[in-house]
Amino acid sequence: MKTVTEAQSLVLQYCQRLSSCEVAAAEALGLVLAEDVISDVDSPPHDKSVVDGFAVRTADFVEGKGRLEVIEIITAGSVPTKALSAGQTSQIMTGAPLPTGADAIVIVERSNLARGELAKLADLIELHEPKLKPGQNIMRRGIAMQQGEQVLASGTRLRAVELGILAEVGRTKIAVQRRPVVAVLATGDELVPPHCKPAAGKIRNSNGPLLVGMVREADAAPYDLGIALDTADSLREKIVTALANCDLLLLSGGVSAGVLDLVPTVLAELGVVEVFHQVSLKPGKPLWFGVYENDARRCLVFGLPGNPVSTFVSFTLFVRPVLDRLLGRPTLQPIIARLSKAHVCRGDRSTYWPSRLIGDEADATRQVEPLNWHGSGDLRTLLNANALAIFETAGEHPAGEEVPILRL
Amino acid sequence: MKTVTEAQSLVLQYCQRLSSCEVAAAEALGLVLAEDVISDVDSPPHDKSVVDGFAVRTADFVEGKGRLEVIEIITAGSVPTKALSAGQTSQIMTGAPLPTGADAIVIVERSNLARGELAKLADLIELHEPKLKPGQNIMRRGIAMQQGEQVLASGTRLRAVELGILAEVGRTKIAVQRRPVVAVLATGDELVPPHCKPAAGKIRNSNGPLLVGMVREADAAPYDLGIALDTADSLREKIVTALANCDLLLLSGGVSAGVLDLVPTVLAELGVVEVFHQVSLKPGKPLWFGVYENDARRCLVFGLPGNPVSTFVSFTLFVRPVLDRLLGRPTLQPIIARLSKAHVCRGDRSTYWPSRLIGDEADATRQVEPLNWHGSGDLRTLLNANALAIFETAGEHPAGEEVPILRL
Repeated sequence: MKTVTEAQSLVLQYCQRLSSCEVAAAEALGLVLAEDVISDVDSPPHDKSVVDGFAVRTADFVEGKGRLEVIEIITAGSVPTKALSAGQTSQIMTGAPLPTGADAIVIVERSNLARGELAKLADLIELHEPKLKPGQNIMRRGIAMQQGEQVLASGTRLRAVELGILAEVGRTKIAVQRRPVVAVLATGDELVPPHCKPAAGKIRNSNGPLLVGMVREADAAPYDLGIALDTADSLREKIVTALANCDLLLLSGGVSAGVLDLVPTVLAELGVVEVFHQVSLKPGKPLWFGVYENDARRCLVFGLPGNPVSTFVSFTLFVRPVLDRLLGRPTLQPIIARLSKAHVCRGDRSTYWPSRLIGDEADATRQVEPLNWHGSGDLRTLLNANALAIFETAGEHPAGEEVPILRL
Repeated sequence: MKTVTEAQSLVLQYCQRLSSCEVAAAEALGLVLAEDVISDVDSPPHDKSVVDGFAVRTADFVEGKGRLEVIEIITAGSVPTKALSAGQTSQIMTGAPLPTGADAIVIVERSNLARGELAKLADLIELHEPKLKPGQNIMRRGIAMQQGEQVLASGTRLRAVELGILAEVGRTKIAVQRRPVVAVLATGDELVPPHCKPAAGKIRNSNGPLLVGMVREADAAPYDLGIALDTADSLREKIVTALANCDLLLLSGGVSAGVLDLVPTVLAELGVVEVFHQVSLKPGKPLWFGVYENDARRCLVFGLPGNPVSTFVSFTLFVRPVLDRLLGRPTLQPIIARLSKAHVCRGDRSTYWPSRLIGDEADATRQVEPLNWHGSGDLRTLLNANALAIFETAGEHPAGEEVPILRL
């Protein structure tokens, strides 16, 4: 039986970054950039004033005082038309370009003009700025970025700030990683759709909505195939659709090698080649993984266990890293925390236990509390979990022991 | 001038949780639940087997061994029809209901049957389970949740796990907080849309796309009004639309009280009542906040400063908490980190400096590095920031000093 690490390595061998596609930058939030972006402008595009005030020549000041003639009023969006000579000033608004000859801006509060008041041309303005220095209140052309310079690298996940920068450099269309398309198919005669009241012996399909949600959380596009019954015909029809259209197919149930666990058989018949079956993992041991290849298409097929927490853990450990790889971005790694209380592990498989990071986040010592979890059928306890605590060995783990955890 | 804390308190006085609306659970990822959800089922709905194996009476075992007659095969989704008497067993699949009389399940590997093999009725099966205990491999009815019990509370943000639970309890439609609708309007004669090449003195509108992205990141719905020129008519037309339709209006630019800063004047004329103007904050001092009320409608209006980083910081400190409040969920609080290098602050306003949390996250000591930032016009440096370091006092802050930080 494969270890978790062996199984993860095997899975990733079949993954490479997907092709890119062009989208409107306005619709690209959360997507991954698939090109390097070069600036076509200097930012700022000119030496600019960062305050409302007066553009001056520091040489005109004596003991922090100047009495200067107003020759122009420069608003943001306009262009100065006059160079300053000795004894001259131009009133200037925040963001406006510096006139030739000026080497500093004196803020309007250091003048005899009220804030919001407009100077008259040819007026003499009294300025008093004891700390006047060349460059004061000026943001130099190109200091934030220069024309021709790379400002964003391929592989960057696009947040609001990146969208702001794309706008600044004039990119309204960009290449992004195509979202992986992920088919989700729950299997089992015991399942009814969520809107139905289950009869005796039946349960509602919660794995489908759970997996569709996890696919969305991973920035991929779900393709919900609903429920397949435990018959070869029912499975075949749904699986064929997925193999023809999707990058991944996630099945839940039907892989524990029980009598009615038809999934591996039907997959093999349809040309999906098994890579491994079963992982030394709790919960999640029955995991099945195979690959379908046809012409240039490849579909990675995961047979996830039918219990919802097994499905959740298998997705977190194997499917999420695949989606991250296809999107060309790093995947979340475990961190270390201390057990807040003792925890006993049974069995010889790696155990991923629903847990909660607790205490003040500002606290230097991260603590994790294993939750009172009732096993792989108990999805409800996951509501309170924000981490999986990883136990590699059986036996008692005392309070205070350092354990790796995967944040959820 | 208001402090940041005073201004935040004032703003929040005008906020209350928005009304709810009904949506399909399948479309509710990331939304906030607006009702308590009660389970209509026990989970599991019956005592169920958690393995493929044989349902047995432990009383039939001597020294861990039993030789039992198969009376039924119980698959998942079916209902047992026969009670076990002394010396009897039923083969049972994972998830299937326990037959009456059974008190444990022996896993198939502990039988003389191969995994995947079906027993024949009336066959004698050899079982050997040295550790057999009553309750073994049985998940009891209702242990994860019980009918009538509350499983989700109003105010919960819906992740994939919550969608799985909603499916399990049969909720395909749910009440969620309505997303706040947020109008975004960039103002200024210097602005051209991102697809245009700016002429001399002009810059592209990056604040609009930045704010639209930040609104989306906060799970609210943006309403992009583009650019208004620095004329009362241009501003009026766009603002009227926003006040009539939106919960918030975010303007950027036009509030620094310069000559052309018409925004406060036009807002007052349209019935928006000023609550405060200017905050002792760097960057972001010119922030303007007011409220428009008409019949049952309320629109909160933020005049954000025109420089992109000022806009970003003002949104983070004032708009984001408003959106969190309207959505009925907590807002992110500052945490403490140590400066990785000395940092000098000028001026007497609270400074929020673009910074980066560094080092191994598993490290007990969180370190934060103030970035080489060129001021409020330098959006590019924010690309590398994942935090704002907060400096309340001017002067040199030595390496190792503990400072509060807001994660981005």
